[in-house]
Amino acid sequence: MAVAELNPCFAPKSLLHPSSSLSPRPCFPTHLRQPNAFGRISYTSYPSISCSIATSKVKALTVERQKEEVNNEEDCYGIFCLTYDLKAEEETKTWKKLINVAVSGAAGTISNHLLFKLASGEVFGPDQPIALKLLGSERSFQALEGVAMELEDSLFPLLREVSIGIDPYDVFQRVEWAVLIGAKPRGPGMERADLLDINGKIFAQQGKALNVVASPNVKVIVVGNPCNTNALICLKNAPSIPAKNFHALTRLDENRAKCQLALKAGVFYDKVSNMTIWGNHSTTQVPDFLNARIDGFPVKDVIKDHKWLQEEFTEKVQKRGGALIQKWGRSSAASTAVSIVDAIRSLTTPTPEGDWFSSAVYTNGNPYGIAEDIVFSMPCRSKGNGDYELVKDVIIDDYLRQRIIKSEAELLAEKRCVAHLIGEGSSVCELPGDTTLPGEK
Amino acid sequence: MAVAELNPCFAPKSLLHPSSSLSPRPCFPTHLRQPNAFGRISYTSYPSISCSIATSKVKALTVERQKEEVNNEEDCYGIFCLTYDLKAEEETKTWKKLINVAVSGAAGTISNHLLFKLASGEVFGPDQPIALKLLGSERSFQALEGVAMELEDSLFPLLREVSIGIDPYDVFQRVEWAVLIGAKPRGPGMERADLLDINGKIFAQQGKALNVVASPNVKVIVVGNPCNTNALICLKNAPSIPAKNFHALTRLDENRAKCQLALKAGVFYDKVSNMTIWGNHSTTQVPDFLNARIDGFPVKDVIKDHKWLQEEFTEKVQKRGGALIQKWGRSSAASTAVSIVDAIRSLTTPTPEGDWFSSAVYTNGNPYGIAEDIVFSMPCRSKGNGDYELVKDVIIDDYLRQRIIKSEAELLAEKRCVAHLIGEGSSVCELPGDTTLPGEK
Repeated sequence: MAVAELNPCFAPKSLLHPSSSLSPRPCFPTHLRQPNAFGRISYTSYPSISCSIATSKVKALTVERQKEEVNNEEDCYGIFCLTYDLKAEEETKTWKKLINVAVSGAAGTISNHLLFKLASGEVFGPDQPIALKLLGSERSFQALEGVAMELEDSLFPLLREVSIGIDPYDVFQRVEWAVLIGAKPRGPGMERADLLDINGKIFAQQGKALNVVASPNVKVIVVGNPCNTNALICLKNAPSIPAKNFHALTRLDENRAKCQLALKAGVFYDKVSNMTIWGNHSTTQVPDFLNARIDGFPVKDVIKDHKWLQEEFTEKVQKRGGALIQKWGRSSAASTAVSIVDAIRSLTTPTPEGDWFSSAVYTNGNPYGIAEDIVFSMPCRSKGNGDYELVKDVIIDDYLRQRIIKSEAELLAEKRCVAHLIGEGSSVCELPGDTTLPGEK
Repeated sequence: MAVAELNPCFAPKSLLHPSSSLSPRPCFPTHLRQPNAFGRISYTSYPSISCSIATSKVKALTVERQKEEVNNEEDCYGIFCLTYDLKAEEETKTWKKLINVAVSGAAGTISNHLLFKLASGEVFGPDQPIALKLLGSERSFQALEGVAMELEDSLFPLLREVSIGIDPYDVFQRVEWAVLIGAKPRGPGMERADLLDINGKIFAQQGKALNVVASPNVKVIVVGNPCNTNALICLKNAPSIPAKNFHALTRLDENRAKCQLALKAGVFYDKVSNMTIWGNHSTTQVPDFLNARIDGFPVKDVIKDHKWLQEEFTEKVQKRGGALIQKWGRSSAASTAVSIVDAIRSLTTPTPEGDWFSSAVYTNGNPYGIAEDIVFSMPCRSKGNGDYELVKDVIIDDYLRQRIIKSEAELLAEKRCVAHLIGEGSSVCELPGDTTLPGEK
């Protein structure tokens, strides 16, 4: 075993005035700030390590903070405060460059599943070292420390950095992926307009932070509801990041739709392909049985009960979350986390020939005639480079068209509710009835 | 894509009178009970599939039930009720034979992490199809259904069967691995003797069931506390299964010990090897810094602060769980699940040259002079075939010996408390002070 070079460090937690035009400043271990030290660090362009932050050192920093002030303000604790030279290890020479992944709502139950999947290599692969950046709230900060402790105790060899924080301008530093799970749940008596506003503000702030401090080509997956409109707000507040990099998660809906079609057809779920969820992650969403396939055949050729397809299938997909809460008393955190993994892997591995996956993405330039400038779930294909293209050869009949239009109208209405958060003047909020999915209320 | 042969089935839930001398009867889909049908099923020696059971059909069956009665009593639901011919698929031709894994306490939070790891292929590998057998209680049955639903919605291609049940004689049918997590927590005012008795009865019953219906070489990992003595009870009630196949989990302790040594030494945790936890999974356990190594060197050569090693290290390891609960308000379910995965993989993959892992196993024939006929955590090596051998070349000095003896004395006292459950007459229960680990009270 080679002896690695070890450099315990004190990493400044934070960094850059958000309105500054400077590029984000890396977090240097003080004693490594000599050029000759840089060469020893092989896995990142910065010889930096972000660290867990001792609670006592955390303050709610204002954007007016001085760099100097910040520099001496924090130190790190825990095993993730160490830097070491990956080159020294035979095994790790073949590893890829460290990838930085931020997760918001990091103390929640979905994250509690997702973070361990990210750390284990299940998502980005067994040769991909990873840095996890956990974003929480002041209220959840101790819980974030608990999560970091459990990640430590799990001894994941690929997990090379864990940092925790409550300021997105810190946590999103140089991240290449951001999974935005944290959102306020709808409280008693809260109108959907209120929810859109409260959560919209969170996502506007996070968009602004991503815009300034994240990797310029960061991929963003919005999970917190209402996720389509939150994603729209986020991308509108991050004009320097390509709009097509923003996704709202409809993958759990897709997975559930595949499962229900498989059940009805009497086949295993791996036989169902080309499953599109169109539209909003709400009850107006359209699980598309017209273009989906079972064993390569159109669904309607395999499932002869067309009445079931038209009248029951969608409801079965949408009621799944509610049924789960009823049975279990908990929401579907584990399968949501799995679907986030699926969503990321769909972007980092080539889509199988002839198949596609669903993701709610920016509609500009879409070939389906859907209104531009919203975030709408549509069929996508990827070459595995983190990017995707919309699938062109889908059939849209009148029945499907009518339902797509309904979801489109809803998203346009949601957009008018958050006009003040996307730089389009005052908001006018007239929403149809409650379309929150059962299990997400 | 080849069209697989699909055989929706009605699987009888249960099986065999536990006192019967017959070998366990496989669960046949009724219409497949012709010899010519058997050949179509490639992945298991029985053309059977266990299924999720509709709640309405579940009864608390007595052991006196008639086979005929059982046959027509249950049907299955969900995607896991389907059988299909793996041979038909090009990809799956290279898959291994289906492996059957039982998990008790399957509706709990540790299981909620573990089951998804098992299903994803993280534990047994990406070419190992798996059948999950979930054991719960009558109270948790609906929650088990919820877990099964989430597993369905996750579309794991390797997950080929999920069955749920409340009778270990059903659930443990032909299982090759059993992870026994379910145990009653200690209630207010409950003495440790009461806890040993209550949980002991559960593990006695599960041992009896494993003895009759499980695979004869089943590997059993006991997680439910007090896990060492529960494992002893379990193995004593399963005389036809090799005693060395029973493990009590001390892997989370080992992982935490590695992490704390790494932190103190200022190295990453992958540099710490040869970490033994000796003894009981309680505060008498001994994390062994005498034999552990850091970067190949004895710990004492790397960490010069021997006072810390002797006076603080053990406490740091043991207080971890309690600290986590304080910070997070939750017990360490995620890292416990990771440590269960580690424990299984340590038995299914060859131990790296010169290293070892800890597991609490049966002491008969141990080379350390530890009392026979108890379950004691000791250093093990495996060739990766599911079996292990105890490591011979460890140093035991007086300091270590004294501490090992203390844990041994505790386990012998626990054993006297459960004499009635292991066929050794009446129990005499005189336990020293409370040695439950913080975080597990």
